[in-house]
Amino acid sequence: MEDREKNPLEQIFNARSIAVFGANEKLTTMGTYQLMNLLGIGFPGKVYPVHPKLASIQGLKAYGSVADLPEVPDLALITIKSEAVVKLFEELGRKGVKRAIVISGGFKEMGEQGRALEQELVKVAQRYGIRFVGPNCIGIIAPWAKINVTMYPYRMNPGAIGLASHSGTYVTQSLVYLEKFGIGYSKAVSLGNEASIDLVDAIDYYAADEQVKAIALYIEGIRRPAEFLAAAKRASAKKPVVAIYVGGTKAGARSGASHTGAMAGRDEIYDGAFKQAGIIRAPDLQSLFEWAYTLAYQPRLKGNRIAVCTNAGGPATSLADALERAGFEVPEFSANLQAKIREQLPPTGSSKNPVDMTYAPDLEIPFFKLPQLILESGEVDGLIIHGIGGGSWYDQLSHNQQEAIKFPFEEMKKWIDAIFLKLAKLPQEIGKPIVTSSFVGREDSAVASVQDLGMPCLPTPERTVLAMAQLRPSK
Amino acid sequence: MEDREKNPLEQIFNARSIAVFGANEKLTTMGTYQLMNLLGIGFPGKVYPVHPKLASIQGLKAYGSVADLPEVPDLALITIKSEAVVKLFEELGRKGVKRAIVISGGFKEMGEQGRALEQELVKVAQRYGIRFVGPNCIGIIAPWAKINVTMYPYRMNPGAIGLASHSGTYVTQSLVYLEKFGIGYSKAVSLGNEASIDLVDAIDYYAADEQVKAIALYIEGIRRPAEFLAAAKRASAKKPVVAIYVGGTKAGARSGASHTGAMAGRDEIYDGAFKQAGIIRAPDLQSLFEWAYTLAYQPRLKGNRIAVCTNAGGPATSLADALERAGFEVPEFSANLQAKIREQLPPTGSSKNPVDMTYAPDLEIPFFKLPQLILESGEVDGLIIHGIGGGSWYDQLSHNQQEAIKFPFEEMKKWIDAIFLKLAKLPQEIGKPIVTSSFVGREDSAVASVQDLGMPCLPTPERTVLAMAQLRPSK
Repeated sequence: MEDREKNPLEQIFNARSIAVFGANEKLTTMGTYQLMNLLGIGFPGKVYPVHPKLASIQGLKAYGSVADLPEVPDLALITIKSEAVVKLFEELGRKGVKRAIVISGGFKEMGEQGRALEQELVKVAQRYGIRFVGPNCIGIIAPWAKINVTMYPYRMNPGAIGLASHSGTYVTQSLVYLEKFGIGYSKAVSLGNEASIDLVDAIDYYAADEQVKAIALYIEGIRRPAEFLAAAKRASAKKPVVAIYVGGTKAGARSGASHTGAMAGRDEIYDGAFKQAGIIRAPDLQSLFEWAYTLAYQPRLKGNRIAVCTNAGGPATSLADALERAGFEVPEFSANLQAKIREQLPPTGSSKNPVDMTYAPDLEIPFFKLPQLILESGEVDGLIIHGIGGGSWYDQLSHNQQEAIKFPFEEMKKWIDAIFLKLAKLPQEIGKPIVTSSFVGREDSAVASVQDLGMPCLPTPERTVLAMAQLRPSK
Repeated sequence: MEDREKNPLEQIFNARSIAVFGANEKLTTMGTYQLMNLLGIGFPGKVYPVHPKLASIQGLKAYGSVADLPEVPDLALITIKSEAVVKLFEELGRKGVKRAIVISGGFKEMGEQGRALEQELVKVAQRYGIRFVGPNCIGIIAPWAKINVTMYPYRMNPGAIGLASHSGTYVTQSLVYLEKFGIGYSKAVSLGNEASIDLVDAIDYYAADEQVKAIALYIEGIRRPAEFLAAAKRASAKKPVVAIYVGGTKAGARSGASHTGAMAGRDEIYDGAFKQAGIIRAPDLQSLFEWAYTLAYQPRLKGNRIAVCTNAGGPATSLADALERAGFEVPEFSANLQAKIREQLPPTGSSKNPVDMTYAPDLEIPFFKLPQLILESGEVDGLIIHGIGGGSWYDQLSHNQQEAIKFPFEEMKKWIDAIFLKLAKLPQEIGKPIVTSSFVGREDSAVASVQDLGMPCLPTPERTVLAMAQLRPSK
């Protein structure tokens, strides 16, 4: 189904009224967290906690039963015990509720008895036309609509990645990791056992959703292979699709079966299917997110020639080496371009490519003027820069003798940040990608700024090469 | 030279009096930073700034010339212009100074003229018996002796890694990166152009130094191949040696030549030499440090069977998959062991291996009791755990509705930290390695605790498998 409006996720990702089943006043209850985080993200719609005994939950009026709800909510959020979910679905169906998220575990992933329970749930849902995420999932996050019904707070800006995952952990626990690199979700769904809404629905939705600029998938096994292939093909024609598949080994398949009851297939088959469908296969979580983020924001490469610009010799050499290993060309610049570069360099600098400024008091040269000059020269197709940041270094110095020295620290930091803001806009202006790295993170405001403008700033030089490789025209 | 006492680095790493050339009262002067950081780390010895005009520098009495110094310092730290270094060496030699660090660039890395200057410097040094680090380097860090003469503050505890690097950036800019993983140096030296003291001296020193538990090398090219091989062989017989080599490609070699004037050799030759010498080759900076750190602290594997224990299904499956891809066995546990595990698990958990607790309010089960049970069972040789931490999650929740809920947050955090402290001691007690990962960093005190006790806690699940692979008996 390619029409976003008809996709079962549309009403879930855009819910304006949510009934919550399983929250109470205790912090040892799963549902309590979900409610806390929904309120915490600033959900602007109506929230209706339902509880047989409590009159209010976390400051909200609570309702005794589904029948008591003052309207038909767009969405039911369910964390109650598995045995009670079927009965709840009956009540929701009678009320006219059409969408649910079943976080509760204890279904197909638990063997025969759970499987039967899940089949019953599906039957009731079908009878009432209820489509639902889960069971045995961790919920969804839709930051643009200020929805977060997971256990973890979402504290970033809305982003560009649409994530669909057979792991709830990769949707939620990873948030603190993603915060460190300024990688935000556009939408994220923990698919769980996929009893109703599955991977194919999510891919279709993200393909049609303009807020999603790149699709990231964590896959333990595929339930509808033909539909998956078709959906992935349609999606990858519109936007990049990156995926991890972990069911290809014996141990991975066994673990996946216990986790979400997924049926995994042989690795080579998935490899072939991914190629056919235009899916970029990532080897690990770090690459999945770094690549999806890079693909979401940076222009594609139009050729294979990469320049390196930095004020650090070791990263310059590591980058040159890693680029050539990855099949890139690191061309020595023309005499003409080198002469122009040398005008800006100290005598210890190197102008050939990599350009190494060595010690550079004027950060505008390595981090804006030379990048602009190099990209506009036409001699390369993309640029890698190591060493984003600067302001945080002054903060570090303050641990020592800073007070003893008169120096306009705050003005310097503003000046540095302004340079990197100009840098972050170059790729769109010139139409060529820049990928960067830095050993400092978002504690440095320059790093935070470029990341927030969609310029990848990765933790080590070598990782930029892997990300750049995903921007190749064939991908 | 295997005798530590006779190694030219001995007096440098243990200097008790340091003369500083090039510092002043301005924060735009390189030498000023070095002095700031030497004072900042709490150097307990004597510091003698030397300056032709200033009477005091950063609160210390300054001396007009080498001749004026009240004693013969153990070490001269030099950041003045390259043209003036030869003359300074003459003065140092006449005073009787025997060790120096020449941070100043503008020597062999600059072509013909610089090469001549460097030869002159070496000639003068030899005449007076001066051995020195550099030129064109960034200095040394010796945290146990509270010495740091680099541009970056060293803010961690002394660690176990001995780093020798052809890149100053990898010694210093990377400090902020290493802080995030609790990876500390035992000693670090930026080798620069290696005009006097070189990689071989550093390897020999670290081999003999008991504070160094693992040796990490960043290599752009080797100047004394036979001596390097012999030294590396001797060192790797005593402790692990991990190295990055980046000179094997055309682009890497060109960049290295501009950087430190290094002569690089073909990749296959280095690969063979590394194998012969017992050096573990790391593909990138992240691996270099993660592996050296793991090897420094964790017991070696005695077999190939690995268990996975976690409370997160996605990481469990990813780990099982990555382990099998890396050639490990992830054996299904015996019925007997599974029964014991199941006693501790909720019904939704999985006991086969991976062990997935799913949602676990009692963190002691997945993060201490089961790890102990599994390692003591004899059914595996090592253990990987994902999900270290817990306390920081409560901090995150406070962004939302925390106040509304009565809960003993601080007590919970202390209880959690105590569990992980017990976990971190298991590998030494049982003699089997544990490598862990977490999406939270040292902002969580449990993560900081285990890292400080030498248990690797890496940023993603898959990276633990690479680190565990280095602990194989063949390595």
